[in-house]
Amino acid sequence: MRILGIDPGLQTTGFGVVEAHGHALHYVASGTIRTTHLERGDLPARLKVLWEGIREVHERYQPEASAVEIVFVNTNPQSTLLLGQARGACLTALVACGLPVAEYTAVQMKRAIAGHGRAGKPEVQSMVQRLLQLPGLPGPDAADALGLAIVHGHAARHFEALAGERTPRSQAQYKRGRSY
Amino acid sequence: MRILGIDPGLQTTGFGVVEAHGHALHYVASGTIRTTHLERGDLPARLKVLWEGIREVHERYQPEASAVEIVFVNTNPQSTLLLGQARGACLTALVACGLPVAEYTAVQMKRAIAGHGRAGKPEVQSMVQRLLQLPGLPGPDAADALGLAIVHGHAARHFEALAGERTPRSQAQYKRGRSY
Repeated sequence: MRILGIDPGLQTTGFGVVEAHGHALHYVASGTIRTTHLERGDLPARLKVLWEGIREVHERYQPEASAVEIVFVNTNPQSTLLLGQARGACLTALVACGLPVAEYTAVQMKRAIAGHGRAGKPEVQSMVQRLLQLPGLPGPDAADALGLAIVHGHAARHFEALAGERTPRSQAQYKRGRSY
Repeated sequence: MRILGIDPGLQTTGFGVVEAHGHALHYVASGTIRTTHLERGDLPARLKVLWEGIREVHERYQPEASAVEIVFVNTNPQSTLLLGQARGACLTALVACGLPVAEYTAVQMKRAIAGHGRAGKPEVQSMVQRLLQLPGLPGPDAADALGLAIVHGHAARHFEALAGERTPRSQAQYKRGRSY
């Protein structure tokens, strides 16, 4: 299964594509979609860049599933509103591409990648590099996105194993991406 | 010019289509896109309904421009985050349809429709009914969306008049939808 991970942000949205075959994970691609070249106040234009970026990644790498970070309320309510709109644009682009969307918190991702939920960015980057046997360190946003794709690969495998046991509840958990 | 007004909301998004010919305004269509039949926690599915609804309205009524309400921070930060994601989905659907997007606050819309920024929902509904000579009262969400389309019709006319005078600043104001 080919999985697209998305770490949404209005200035920089990270993406990472991973191929999961049973226990094996293979790196496909990663990078960032940036809106920093656009006027800060022109939100429709910035969301259009996110929309076009995700569509381009989808067309080029043909993922079959996606995993998006669950964002939280910021101390600055205006930032919360902007981040919400960026995440809404990312989710819309994914569902418009026909991709199923699973959602994970940063803590769930860090726990699965680094073994504990308080891992800092450098730790996530180096663990993602190790897990995917990358020649270099991925950037922080791309690493988060690859981490989300990896977590979803694990969760999907877990679900497949449980599906063999016919446990309907686990399917609901998987659909919400909360099995980690 | 045919204008699509959008009043974004996660549960109910209002839409209204108005045709503006100089000073004359004609009603084309209005209604709501609802996500209340879906599981509250399934945000991707709910945003997909908003995306599909706006695309359907665009295909059916072929507007050439759009006007979207600027939302504000809620006292409940979680509600702010959800509203932000709904608005992000609406903006993304509009730009994906290739529509230019203007943004207006509720106060700007109410001032233009009812003459003062503190107009309540019933006042906006009855003023929209009168301005568009509707046989019945539009619903509150549809009325807000029609109000946004009307305001943008006024602003576009205002801009055209100013464009004749070659005032570059007014174009920037128009682009941001702030000329009201």
